[in-house]
Amino acid sequence: MVKKVLKFGGTSVGTVERIQHVAKIIKKEHEKGNQIIAVLSAMSGKTNELIDLSKKITNNFNKRELDVLLSTGEQVTCALLAGALIELKLKAKSWMNWQIPILTEGEHSNARIVNMNVKKINNFLQDGIAIIPGFQGISKIGDVTTIGRGGSDATAVAIAKLFEADTCEIYTDVDGVFSTDPNKIPVAKKIEKISYDEMLELSSLGAKVMQSSAVQTAMMYNIPLEVRSTFTDRKGTKIFEQQNIDYSKSVTGVAYSKDDAKITLLGVEDRPGVAANVFEPLNKSQINVDMVIQNISSDQKTTDITFTIKREDLLKTKEILKNNRRINYKDITQNDRVSKVSIVGAGMVSTPGITYKMFRGLADENINILAISTSEIKLSVIIDEENTLNAVKKLHTIFDLD
Amino acid sequence: MVKKVLKFGGTSVGTVERIQHVAKIIKKEHEKGNQIIAVLSAMSGKTNELIDLSKKITNNFNKRELDVLLSTGEQVTCALLAGALIELKLKAKSWMNWQIPILTEGEHSNARIVNMNVKKINNFLQDGIAIIPGFQGISKIGDVTTIGRGGSDATAVAIAKLFEADTCEIYTDVDGVFSTDPNKIPVAKKIEKISYDEMLELSSLGAKVMQSSAVQTAMMYNIPLEVRSTFTDRKGTKIFEQQNIDYSKSVTGVAYSKDDAKITLLGVEDRPGVAANVFEPLNKSQINVDMVIQNISSDQKTTDITFTIKREDLLKTKEILKNNRRINYKDITQNDRVSKVSIVGAGMVSTPGITYKMFRGLADENINILAISTSEIKLSVIIDEENTLNAVKKLHTIFDLD
Repeated sequence: MVKKVLKFGGTSVGTVERIQHVAKIIKKEHEKGNQIIAVLSAMSGKTNELIDLSKKITNNFNKRELDVLLSTGEQVTCALLAGALIELKLKAKSWMNWQIPILTEGEHSNARIVNMNVKKINNFLQDGIAIIPGFQGISKIGDVTTIGRGGSDATAVAIAKLFEADTCEIYTDVDGVFSTDPNKIPVAKKIEKISYDEMLELSSLGAKVMQSSAVQTAMMYNIPLEVRSTFTDRKGTKIFEQQNIDYSKSVTGVAYSKDDAKITLLGVEDRPGVAANVFEPLNKSQINVDMVIQNISSDQKTTDITFTIKREDLLKTKEILKNNRRINYKDITQNDRVSKVSIVGAGMVSTPGITYKMFRGLADENINILAISTSEIKLSVIIDEENTLNAVKKLHTIFDLD
Repeated sequence: MVKKVLKFGGTSVGTVERIQHVAKIIKKEHEKGNQIIAVLSAMSGKTNELIDLSKKITNNFNKRELDVLLSTGEQVTCALLAGALIELKLKAKSWMNWQIPILTEGEHSNARIVNMNVKKINNFLQDGIAIIPGFQGISKIGDVTTIGRGGSDATAVAIAKLFEADTCEIYTDVDGVFSTDPNKIPVAKKIEKISYDEMLELSSLGAKVMQSSAVQTAMMYNIPLEVRSTFTDRKGTKIFEQQNIDYSKSVTGVAYSKDDAKITLLGVEDRPGVAANVFEPLNKSQINVDMVIQNISSDQKTTDITFTIKREDLLKTKEILKNNRRINYKDITQNDRVSKVSIVGAGMVSTPGITYKMFRGLADENINILAISTSEIKLSVIIDEENTLNAVKKLHTIFDLD
């Protein structure tokens, strides 16, 4: 008997017809003898629609009440799926956040699941299918909480962990995780198996198949994931521990992010705490700083600090830097049309020459590298935005991913 | 300090702008020093929209899951109103059915409220405004339940009772209860004060301002009601005990229902249980029988039974009667174009000549009376449908209601 958590995203439950289709997928899995817990998102667009209602009242809508409002979206899809399954002569039941309950900690709109009562549902799973809303829970004092956008993935993984499920399958509107964006680079290939680390690097780099924190949780508790399409029978991408993967290729995928801007502070006074002084006010203003590169400067008393942000945050960032009395620097330069291109692969560590090969490939295409950042399984460069697709195509080819 | 329950119907919370308007009404009431509990319906049309979704799956949607689905409508309006009140710098909080909890008994989609935990909310009311979804509760085993269409009125009255509120105000899209339908009879006047009994007779006769069972509950616990408009500042109609009303007029209002049909069973064998035998199978098939009149027949061995039903049920009713082997009768006659016109007034009992005055008035208009039925505070006649408005106008005039 295999216990499976099946999570269906917003497009997978976007209409009644699609919910009926999801019911058929679940029926098939149940008939194989599997115990099924289904975790659902709201219908695609629904959460935004509810947010828009709240924004008509104020952009600063009370967070407790916003959570009450938004949590209704998943309750609707859960009830509809339960009804659809019962119509297929299956035993099925929806369980709301407070009925389980799904206990969370942390503030409204950004809570995290800490516990769940599994007993009642485990009994029900003997012959029934349990349906649980993603993205929500209740707090210690019994308020409705939500766990951040895309939080249904986190719910699915938390449920897989707490119910000791054998596997957690993420049904979505793409076939799986690709070696790069298949919409832009037609030779992109679906990855069959990938490690949690690589998945994290890819998803944080723009391959938005699964929410990163959910992948992290799965990694921490070693829960096997599979990302697959609701709309085809094709196998998806399996995500598990690195040691279970046989790496024939050093690079698994090429990711890129657009709409970035790069800022360099030149001649920053070089003393302990200076980086903290630069980034603390940005963090307070919720500006998401991505890559940070600090070079030792030639005179050894000052340093240059380069970092990237979303382009839309550029003006605000510059203003915060200018008003920051705790840092001294000679000049600010900026480039508001840059992108980040990264190669990701757990096999990179053990393969020499990857770095050189990447730089050579970009040079052959006459693409100038504006900044470089590396980690164990990732190598990122900042380039002019207009060169993005060229760079991605070239790297995809030279690392044998086509 | 006055404790008020304010209930807002679907059109009153039909858009975000209207919800903001409701927030202003509540603010004004709160600033007068009143303690406020607001009970809300779903946005107008929302419940039907959710039912339509369920019907796309099946007309026989599981009732437990239907209640989960439908209960989301009021949760949305409650969260939005709470947010709107907080935006007006008031302390406000939504309380869901399970947070209070609102305990119900009875089957799904037709439960009734039996109890509520008032303590937490009573504490909150010291300086805060509590917002509660109408139409829903939870069962003893913790399932979501709903209490029937229009059930938000019932919720408001139950809350008024359990919280020992001083008054319960029903905000809706009409100015109050009228002496007859103001859309059809322009001389109709708003009634300032009316007794529970009269209100019940009027509302069960087509003046659908408030749900009848909610009026009954208010009568049982002597909770003063007021029906008023969300969209004007005008006073509404106050509903309370008969003894508190000074009747200057014997007739309070003229009600009518259309789309009726009349059936007469001629020469029914007259023995104990015959009426039960006629109506039991109709009840089982959920055919709503309205007026029933039984005359002693001339030969004293048989009787004639006349009753009215909705026109849409006519064919089904005749079929059931024909297949009913437990009754013997000579013939069936029918009239499928009739209406019921009624005068209602608690003052009728003590005023002689009302009956005669009504029949004389109709005769003056050349309107033939097909059947008559009377109660303590009501006198109904069945007439040809084409005469309905003429009859209502005439009665409205002769009983000094214009």
